[in-house]
This record gives sequence, structure tokens and C-alpha cells, in this order.
Amino acid sequence: MFRIAYVNGRYLRAAESAVHIEDRGYQFADGVYEVVAVVGGALVDATPHMARLARSLEEMQIAWPVSPRALSHIIAEIVRRNGIGDGMIYLQITRGVAPRDHAFPARARPSLVVTAKRLAPQRPELVVRGVPVITIPDIRWGRCDIKSVSLLPNVLGKQRAKAAGAYEAWQVGADGVVTEGTSTNAWIVDGKGTALTHPADHRILGGITREVVIEVARRADIKVAERPFTVKDVFAAREAFLTSTTSAVLPVVSVDGRPIGSGRPGPVTMQLRERYLAALARQARRIARNAS
Amino acid sequence: MFRIAYVNGRYLRAAESAVHIEDRGYQFADGVYEVVAVVGGALVDATPHMARLARSLEEMQIAWPVSPRALSHIIAEIVRRNGIGDGMIYLQITRGVAPRDHAFPARARPSLVVTAKRLAPQRPELVVRGVPVITIPDIRWGRCDIKSVSLLPNVLGKQRAKAAGAYEAWQVGADGVVTEGTSTNAWIVDGKGTALTHPADHRILGGITREVVIEVARRADIKVAERPFTVKDVFAAREAFLTSTTSAVLPVVSVDGRPIGSGRPGPVTMQLRERYLAALARQARRIARNAS
Repeated sequence: MFRIAYVNGRYLRAAESAVHIEDRGYQFADGVYEVVAVVGGALVDATPHMARLARSLEEMQIAWPVSPRALSHIIAEIVRRNGIGDGMIYLQITRGVAPRDHAFPARARPSLVVTAKRLAPQRPELVVRGVPVITIPDIRWGRCDIKSVSLLPNVLGKQRAKAAGAYEAWQVGADGVVTEGTSTNAWIVDGKGTALTHPADHRILGGITREVVIEVARRADIKVAERPFTVKDVFAAREAFLTSTTSAVLPVVSVDGRPIGSGRPGPVTMQLRERYLAALARQARRIARNAS
Repeated sequence: MFRIAYVNGRYLRAAESAVHIEDRGYQFADGVYEVVAVVGGALVDATPHMARLARSLEEMQIAWPVSPRALSHIIAEIVRRNGIGDGMIYLQITRGVAPRDHAFPARARPSLVVTAKRLAPQRPELVVRGVPVITIPDIRWGRCDIKSVSLLPNVLGKQRAKAAGAYEAWQVGADGVVTEGTSTNAWIVDGKGTALTHPADHRILGGITREVVIEVARRADIKVAERPFTVKDVFAAREAFLTSTTSAVLPVVSVDGRPIGSGRPGPVTMQLRERYLAALARQARRIARNAS
């Protein structure tokens, strides 16, 4: 749990951190968010996260509540006030408070909430054994590329995974294509050893970790392609894994109860995980050097 | 604007009416709502609205925050404290406050917010002249039958209508079928004089006014059918109209700038409107008699 939150200009204790009941985030899911990892007190991949936030705001025609520079200061202050070394920040921007009416209000000031919390280290057994996932129909709207708080289908999907004893639910379109998980991107390693993930179009949220893993793979001469794959492809794959800010690179060893490949974490997956974590550590050291 | 809101057990002034920033309604659109008309201080069609609320809660696996009976008392108190004769109440129930995690929290108490406000009378020219609508692609999720606060596509659609000078945007599926407006149900009167509206399946929210209009039509021997129609059918229609709690029955005279039928409010539409309003007035008198 966070201790101190930034809420519309004020630093508040957790129990006092509140927004108005007519905030459009509450009544209409009319807002966007970002989750950014914190390592050694500094944001990881801050630049692409802020670029994605800028794009979400632009697509939704929501103005910046404060300048990007001021936002960086607020985030740093929230990290400091919550005493976070390693953890994550959560930030949410909504269209603001206005009498309830679907269309954009004429004069609302966007709302800004920032919190930070420690993250428990990833449980080693998740990495060593890998995790099970299930598949569910992708019933989401047509603009999954916007990182909005309109997350109800993701909530219901994640709950189905949890109820089934799985780590995640992979969402499958009417055409059989696996788009992504409810809060993670989906990957397979095909019979030719190529790591595949869905292209960053309207059907998925372009994850930052997904982007970094593509980069890391290219630098390591691991074959990688942004190409749709189907459930059938998943069952024929050598390996499977998922990526996200909080999960990093995590091996997937079964889908709907059927083992993938050997049924154990695969070599390409583990190499990408190690290289991703190494890149993260390099970035943290660089930030620490610049700060000192 | 409302004066007093009920928020999780307390009656609060508008400025103080707030929910926690980790309310799942704010972070995940994990909640449902109802809008109910108030006439002469009493709720209109309270029974079907409460039945729909019960269904939404059940589909989302959210418990009642208070008993239905207690909710009725709270609503009556909010109507009274806000001094509402004719207007509407808004109520919202979310899964509650919990540390941010997609899956359902183990121990969250559902949140309940109730507000009430006066409604300006419907502007006569909307009825006399009829309103223009535009069509937009229906990009919503696959469970539009749940009255959830996951309303972002509706917001963006309504804004497109507003920007185009239209009253509403009718959403059109990939198959050409007109599902519904962003906050109203869509109707046409076809060449045989039958009033058509989309069946109450997963693609639309089953509006209460829509239900009442179907009933009213049947009692008046006006032909009515719950049957999908396409944009092509719209342009071939004799009349078009829309229904909702706050719009009642409103004639639609053009779609995407093309006149429908005569380009003026049609006779079946106006007959349904008059009969709907008469049924409303009868209900209000009945409630007043029972109260006295």
C-alpha cells in the first residue's frame, strides 16, 4: 500500500486520498494511466512511458494536467515521500470533474493522481517452474492501443484466470488470433526459433517491456517478429512467455492445461529474461551514476 | 448539480462528496450504475430499474452494498434532501476500495453513491423539429448488456455527435447493423409501419424506456418488433426515433445529414411519444395517490 499520494495539487495521506464522485474517471472510465517500475529510486524506461502517456492523452483529447516536466518532479517527490527504492509508481489522468454528461465538458480541469509502492520481489518459483495461462474470448473494445482505465473486460478476464488457478488469461479474437493477456503481452517461440508477439496495432496495448524485449532480442541476434499467431500456433510452439512492467519476462509452460513445448521454461525465454534484467540493471546503474 | 450525495453511509454536501483513489470504479471501471427519472418526487419505473441493477450486479459478481430495501430508503432520502420534484437520480455501485490488482479483491466492501438533480424540461424544439443523428462504428466490448461504468467508447461517440452538431451517434456493427446510440436506444419505423429496435442481447443495453415503449405500442396496436436493422434500412425507413430515460421518445429526422422519411417527426413516433408520456403521467398519479 502507498503511504502518500499526489492528488490534484496536494500530497495526501492514503486514507485521505480521494477524488470527487463526479470525476469522469469514476463515472465514465474517461481517463488514462501508466505503471512505471522504480529501481534504486529511479524510474525505469521513463522516456517511453511518458511518450505513451502523451499518446494516450492525445488520442483521448485530454490536456496535460501539469507540464511533463512538473509531472516528473511530482513523481520523484512521490517516490521519495513513500520511501521507495525498488517498486512502482502508478499515475492516472482523467478528464476531470464535471456534472455528469457523456460529451466532453466545456471547462473541466484534468485530474492527476500519483502513487508509489514497494513491490514484493517476483517469487522465484514462477520463473523456475513457469506459469499456466488460460485462453478466453477477446471481448474488448476496438481501441486497446489506448492505455485507458476502461479495464472492466481485463478485470473479468484476470478473475477467470485466478479462478482457474492460472497466472493470466490470453485473449483470443474471433479469428483465433491471440492478442494479449489482460495485463501482460503474449509471446511464443515458433518451430523455427523465432519469438513472436502481436503487432502493436489497435488490438493490443503496446507494452514498454514488450518493446524493450524486442530490442534486447535484436541486439542478441535472437530472431523476433511482430506477427499475429493463433491458439493453434501456441499449441505447436516450442516455448511461450509473457511480458509486463511488473512480471518482466515470465515463462508460460501450459495453456488451457496443455503443456507448451517441453512443458518447462524454454531456453529462448530464459535468455531473453536474463538479457532483459541485465539491461534493466545497466539502466539503473547509469541513472545512479548520473544522480551522484 | 446535486446538493447532497449519499456516499458509502454518509450524506455529504456536493463539494465533500468523494471516493477513495483506489476505488475500483476509478481505476478499473469496475462498477455499475442506474439513472432513474423522478416525477412528483417519486421514481418512475423503479421496479424494472432495480431488476436491471440486480442483473448487472449479478453478472459482475458484485454484492449489494446495502439491501434493495435500504437502497430504496436512501434514494427517497436523497430525493427529499435535494428537494427534487421532477428530475432524476443517479446511483453507482462499484466493487469497492482495494490495493490495485486486476482480479477481484478478497475483502472489499462495495461502494455506493447516490445523487439526485433537477432536469431542465426537454426543449420543445427538439420534439417539434426532431433531432439529427450521425452513425459511427460500434467499437464497444462484447457485453453491452451490462450497465457498467466502462463508458469510454460511449463518451467518445457522444463527443463525435456533439462535434458534428448532432444529438446522438448511432453505433453500427461490422455487419452494418445499427445497435444503439451512445446513451439512447435506436428505432425506425419501416415501410410496413412496424416500429423496429435491436433485440435486447449482448450488443445493446436493454433500456427501460425501450421496454415501456414496446409495451405501450402493443397496447395501442402499433406494430412493433425487436429485430436488427441496418444503416440501409434506416435510409429506407418512414420514420426514426430514439428512446431513453431522459430523452423519453424523441423523433430523429436525419441520419448523417440525409433526411429520414419526410424529414419531419413521423406520426408513429409522435403517437408513441404521447402514449409513453401519458403512461408516465398515469404512473405518477398512481404513486401520488398511494403516498397520500
